[in-house]
Amino acid sequence: MEKVKVGINGYGVIGKRIAEAVLLQEDMELVGVTARTPDYRLFSADRKGIKIFGTDFEACNRLMEAGVKCQGDFNHFVKGVDVVIDATPAGVGSDNKVKYDGFEVKSIFQGGESHDLTGLSFVAQVNYKDAIGKQSLRVVSCNTTAICRTTFPFVEKGLLEKAYMALARRGVDPVDSHEKGPLGTVVLEDSIPSHQGPDAKTVIPNLNILTVAVAVPVTLGHLHLAFLRLNKELSKAEVVEILKSSPRVVAINYKDGITAQNQLVELMRDMGRPRADMWEVAFWEDLLHVEGKDVTFYYQVHNEAIVVPENIDAIRAISGNEADPRKSIQKTNQSLGIVSSFT
Amino acid sequence: MEKVKVGINGYGVIGKRIAEAVLLQEDMELVGVTARTPDYRLFSADRKGIKIFGTDFEACNRLMEAGVKCQGDFNHFVKGVDVVIDATPAGVGSDNKVKYDGFEVKSIFQGGESHDLTGLSFVAQVNYKDAIGKQSLRVVSCNTTAICRTTFPFVEKGLLEKAYMALARRGVDPVDSHEKGPLGTVVLEDSIPSHQGPDAKTVIPNLNILTVAVAVPVTLGHLHLAFLRLNKELSKAEVVEILKSSPRVVAINYKDGITAQNQLVELMRDMGRPRADMWEVAFWEDLLHVEGKDVTFYYQVHNEAIVVPENIDAIRAISGNEADPRKSIQKTNQSLGIVSSFT
Repeated sequence: MEKVKVGINGYGVIGKRIAEAVLLQEDMELVGVTARTPDYRLFSADRKGIKIFGTDFEACNRLMEAGVKCQGDFNHFVKGVDVVIDATPAGVGSDNKVKYDGFEVKSIFQGGESHDLTGLSFVAQVNYKDAIGKQSLRVVSCNTTAICRTTFPFVEKGLLEKAYMALARRGVDPVDSHEKGPLGTVVLEDSIPSHQGPDAKTVIPNLNILTVAVAVPVTLGHLHLAFLRLNKELSKAEVVEILKSSPRVVAINYKDGITAQNQLVELMRDMGRPRADMWEVAFWEDLLHVEGKDVTFYYQVHNEAIVVPENIDAIRAISGNEADPRKSIQKTNQSLGIVSSFT
Repeated sequence: MEKVKVGINGYGVIGKRIAEAVLLQEDMELVGVTARTPDYRLFSADRKGIKIFGTDFEACNRLMEAGVKCQGDFNHFVKGVDVVIDATPAGVGSDNKVKYDGFEVKSIFQGGESHDLTGLSFVAQVNYKDAIGKQSLRVVSCNTTAICRTTFPFVEKGLLEKAYMALARRGVDPVDSHEKGPLGTVVLEDSIPSHQGPDAKTVIPNLNILTVAVAVPVTLGHLHLAFLRLNKELSKAEVVEILKSSPRVVAINYKDGITAQNQLVELMRDMGRPRADMWEVAFWEDLLHVEGKDVTFYYQVHNEAIVVPENIDAIRAISGNEADPRKSIQKTNQSLGIVSSFT
């Protein structure tokens, strides 16, 4: 089997993580990444031996003037790849797609783009097979990915009547100082339902869900407060088992001293994970509450990391190199170190 | 009608506000407040001509040494009052109640005490009549008061199947520097349901509710994300009308630029309110979403202020000076400046 040649267009919060994840895959080859500006963010690419291309001719000149070896401009970059990961800022994907299509290169977009751009919104465990051989797809955003992981096992089993989810969103990413994050206040979304609920339906069409979100002055990630109304009564043990059966969902416990977001992040740091990344969704098993047909629980979403394994699976699906979703998920999990338990 | 003689035991965040609210009531007389330590917090009592008593003999000495005129110790304080408001720190109420009962003084506790201390948990619009002539009662906490105000009109009309509420709690009060508030993280409660749901049932026994809460690094107050599942379909206009019919519930709009907690606080400052207090619960009318039998909306709770009018009504009820809840609520609202619209 030939290796899939992957290029990453954009080397920011998501792009750099996917690039490093691609390096860990036996069935993929990282052609390189694009950059617009020479700055500290490229140090890690250099350290990993990742080839750097300019986003255009001028960018290539800027890189070379700063002493960064530029392998070529966008045309050179895109010609050498089978699949391009578009990890550019939200909203520019539609312009980029025209270029990728022009070069007949398959493309994977991120959740900042609209569903309509590709017509296929992807979460590996839900619709991997729909993506096989496709020209392009969109990996949905961090929150939507997490919602799909926690609800799909219930939807699949015909158990979910309705999901009510309240999202406490991180204000900005840790790296951001130029973007405006809330300080000492809680910020509302401009509409109810917040976009994550409808977005999750682009992945799971028969998902019955209402989401409402606020942004809070934290950078560590998102915390979801989930109410699942089932259509039959299950025991807590049964509910926990269903959640645990979902790929990339891990049970944690408050009694172990994980009483806030930062302690779970500290555990990731203790585990030696790159950038303390948590690719899994973690839910609090001991706090999970079952009352009649209602299930209520907390789970944490590391927005910088959760979509990384989904992108890797998306590469396999879109390239057609692996037909079995479970095998792709397993390969991705093993290569990255994604686990089913943190203990 | 004789004026009710009111004493406030404790002059902190809640106590000082209730003291000033009592001063505004034509049917009440503020005997005085107690203090343990002479510091800046008493400046405002002095400015308003509020008499200060020591929490005990030693406290009285400390006050006098600092030049604060002490009117006597706890015994002098309690002997002169008909109704004492216990605004001491949470948990010491049970010891205090023994003292109040010993002096045959009626007592009103705050939400930090347990329901069992008095057997009557009070929200004016729900159970004012149950409180008439009672020896003691507990005004429930800020969050519980808000939950009662937003849900009771639906419960009363037999419309509520179940309320699912997610609470983003303020970390500490603005005045706190000694208490530990979360910084840059979201903190979980140690159980689901969080205590506010069961607590609201002590006021509204047939309330079907599930609450889950987190604490966030803000001091401005609480924000609730509410899902009400009704047992019949109502229009948005009907739902809004029901919410507006609830005393001390005010509709606000995102389109007016109130897009986060702090902007609503700024409006209270613009309105010239003492300490920017918002005694009302404010819900976002334009964002409120109705979908089938489900209603989803945001509302904000000013935890320092919301229980103040409830305490005033509780004084009237417990003293037996006003039998009609609506009249008491109206007197309290007029005296404080509580409105049905902020525009």
